[in-house]
Amino acid sequence: MSDTESAVRPDAPLDLSLSDDELDATRDRITEFIADTADDAGADGGVLGLSGGIDSTLTAYLTVEALGTDGLHGLVMPSEVNSEGNMSDAECVAEDLGIEYDVLAIEPIVDAFLDAFPEPIEDHEVESDPLRTAVGNVRVRTRAVLGYFVANHENRIVLGTGNRSEALAGYYTKYGDGAVDCLPIGNLYKQQVRQLASHVGVPDDLVNKTPTAGMWVGQTDEEEMGMSYDTLDAVLALHVDGPLSKSATARELDIDPELIENVETLVARSAHKREMPPAP
Amino acid sequence: MSDTESAVRPDAPLDLSLSDDELDATRDRITEFIADTADDAGADGGVLGLSGGIDSTLTAYLTVEALGTDGLHGLVMPSEVNSEGNMSDAECVAEDLGIEYDVLAIEPIVDAFLDAFPEPIEDHEVESDPLRTAVGNVRVRTRAVLGYFVANHENRIVLGTGNRSEALAGYYTKYGDGAVDCLPIGNLYKQQVRQLASHVGVPDDLVNKTPTAGMWVGQTDEEEMGMSYDTLDAVLALHVDGPLSKSATARELDIDPELIENVETLVARSAHKREMPPAP
Repeated sequence: MSDTESAVRPDAPLDLSLSDDELDATRDRITEFIADTADDAGADGGVLGLSGGIDSTLTAYLTVEALGTDGLHGLVMPSEVNSEGNMSDAECVAEDLGIEYDVLAIEPIVDAFLDAFPEPIEDHEVESDPLRTAVGNVRVRTRAVLGYFVANHENRIVLGTGNRSEALAGYYTKYGDGAVDCLPIGNLYKQQVRQLASHVGVPDDLVNKTPTAGMWVGQTDEEEMGMSYDTLDAVLALHVDGPLSKSATARELDIDPELIENVETLVARSAHKREMPPAP
Repeated sequence: MSDTESAVRPDAPLDLSLSDDELDATRDRITEFIADTADDAGADGGVLGLSGGIDSTLTAYLTVEALGTDGLHGLVMPSEVNSEGNMSDAECVAEDLGIEYDVLAIEPIVDAFLDAFPEPIEDHEVESDPLRTAVGNVRVRTRAVLGYFVANHENRIVLGTGNRSEALAGYYTKYGDGAVDCLPIGNLYKQQVRQLASHVGVPDDLVNKTPTAGMWVGQTDEEEMGMSYDTLDAVLALHVDGPLSKSATARELDIDPELIENVETLVARSAHKREMPPAP
């Protein structure tokens, strides 16, 4: 079993892994896409928020392949809800790649946003929805504004880190981490992101880290979506992107049909995030 | 000459004015669109940034027609570059309409953004590009984050104020004033925005105010785009949206062909703002 195959979990309901040839072709296609996008925009490189997670780490590796170390300015943007570990991981990625990077604390900016309102927002209110999500989104959107400030200042494009699983499930913040100029890994399911990350040399501990959007303390993607990425990927590939009916998908994957309905709901409710704002 | 026709300027190179019947139909179509969009999103109304300019004022009037006064939460978000006059106009609009509104000072937030960087940004650097534009965009994007915070907190949609002339010319900030859930007046040329605003009762002094994006002191839309909205509208309607060639448009409008090339450049350079971020 090669290193690149190790990213496919033994209990995944559907194996979406790419062959070594497909991985090489995917890697070439993505690096060419990054270079072409920067070139078409007349930009002097890219800027990218580094979280220490697998999506931003893989995107950083591929951007350095496409544009060189000078071509990427990394932003490490810790908040009070990110563990120290995460941020050290992000800084390690920047150091390993040898790119320029800044560490920008976002919490003073988030506080300034909340202080703008006439009625003060109490700490305990932020512990549950809708304020918890609203404040979490302020964190994510603050990172987007910082990314575009650097991009505008240095004539760079903003690279997105979203993958196909997140995009279809709508598991990202509209005009937050979705506010980018291009999505290099936007057509890879999460399982394939893990596989390609291993293939290009991302350290195993980052490949296998629990994914979190870091919007509040203790948040994990899989708990919030109510299913594992492996299950989500499988339903998306067979039913949403693929030709199988709901019942055929449930039989094929041997899962509760309700899980498939949950995925359909995620996809339908987030349709507005994948379209430009409509006009009459 | 009726009130609604007064918005067509005598020296406009092309008269794009709508008949009274067309104005009524447009008004109905837009209010229905706003009501349907809020309804489809399961939202309890809308939130809108009020600048005191004609676009946001017309959008506010039409939203109150669609959703009632309880259906609109206005945000007046002055910065150090907005004249006192502008902000009073915005507050007057909210008072006239009888809607709930907050006045939120954005400058402390903008300062917090700039303070996040390890090397302090000097005031004199902000007086010229690229920093002037980068900081102006931080102001616009800060307003977007505040709008979405209220929207997330109160289960509202964010209403955009962009018109067709701005959209095609790319005269707005990507993920700033472009970060909205829908664009009620997004298919009206600026000339038609003025006409519809008069038609629905927006005060004449707001209809005839010099348009500004308010990104820095003294900015006006027409000076920055290098042409009047009347000329832009005419070239968009005949050449970009319409069937006339460049030379036929120049002859029809009796203008320098170079102006048409300038419009083509604005449209081409801003194409990325009108599309979702691409993936390979």
